[in-house]
Amino acid sequence: MTGPVFDAAFRETLELLLAWRRDVRHFQTRPLPEGVLDRLLEIACRGPSVGNAQPWRFVRILSPERRSALADQVDAQKADAGKRYAGERKALYEGLKLHGLREAPEIVAVFCDEQDGAGHGLGRATMPETLCWSVVTAVHTLWLAARAQGIGLGWVSIIDPAELNTLLDVPQRWRFVALLCLGYPARETETPELVRHGWQERLDPATTRLVR
Amino acid sequence: MTGPVFDAAFRETLELLLAWRRDVRHFQTRPLPEGVLDRLLEIACRGPSVGNAQPWRFVRILSPERRSALADQVDAQKADAGKRYAGERKALYEGLKLHGLREAPEIVAVFCDEQDGAGHGLGRATMPETLCWSVVTAVHTLWLAARAQGIGLGWVSIIDPAELNTLLDVPQRWRFVALLCLGYPARETETPELVRHGWQERLDPATTRLVR
Repeated sequence: MTGPVFDAAFRETLELLLAWRRDVRHFQTRPLPEGVLDRLLEIACRGPSVGNAQPWRFVRILSPERRSALADQVDAQKADAGKRYAGERKALYEGLKLHGLREAPEIVAVFCDEQDGAGHGLGRATMPETLCWSVVTAVHTLWLAARAQGIGLGWVSIIDPAELNTLLDVPQRWRFVALLCLGYPARETETPELVRHGWQERLDPATTRLVR
Repeated sequence: MTGPVFDAAFRETLELLLAWRRDVRHFQTRPLPEGVLDRLLEIACRGPSVGNAQPWRFVRILSPERRSALADQVDAQKADAGKRYAGERKALYEGLKLHGLREAPEIVAVFCDEQDGAGHGLGRATMPETLCWSVVTAVHTLWLAARAQGIGLGWVSIIDPAELNTLLDVPQRWRFVALLCLGYPARETETPELVRHGWQERLDPATTRLVR
């Protein structure tokens, strides 16, 4: 069986997609077209998973109360994490917008079902964390599929996972992985926001490689 | 600033790429063209990372002794993990080929530099595991970029991380994330090998979604 051949033009556009992906924190408030989010979540399920366990669980947040509670919690965590910085770095930190939870048209929480039997434990006897990593690749798949439609995604990780299951009324055996904002970005750019604000430059890829 | 517009034809081909990605365990032995792996690793560095920390470290294995030691270790782990299965499931397990470490033209070990200062801790005060997850998305980026060139990737996770740093002579502060085989696949298919062998069916994406 021979699969599709991906030509040079596609590969070039794929590289553009990767280059323009971005972690978005500034969103327009206009809604996504009906059905688009469901379709994106379907595509996300094409991410790889260890033992084909497909442990991803997506929770679309529609309740304004829950959205507001999430935003409040993240704001509190941002303030708390800021205590570790001082001087110029602290000023930089305070100028960063770290989430669009109050204005993005869609909020999705992502979990890993750690006790589902799917996959039968294959591939994770020595590295059980690979189950959770499968959910991470599903989020990345969603990210790319969204960006290909002009939709931005922001991954919020400054949150305490401990109380999320209760807040969102999901099974306690689900492990929290990500809180995502989705919507049309206020601006598009090839430069990561953290580079633009002087927080962290790009590293030279050559410095990340060794030969053994 | 307005970014590139990705049209419907590109999005359709991107979906094909995701559908035909596969975790490859059967490889042709012919080498990758000169320079292709380096270029793919450069593209992998476009994956997202928490605080823009870019913690990925890639180790290309050229030493036949090291390759052989890795393959031996994975074979031993496969046998060991097999003890948890019985009956029909055990027979299925024994029929699975779980890696191409002896024949794939390229082997790459991937690590996370957990003590590098890049990113200044941003975004990981409450979830330090997101640093490692950034490396996971880099692997997924590499996977897609490789597949777009007709190159298959297999992620080997049945390995004990404890001794890898010594075996590969990399800094102890690097945390092992993945062992990858890369090369042209022996066959191309839209059906995951674990589905074809009756190990684990695809789940209905609709069962992975909730609304709150």
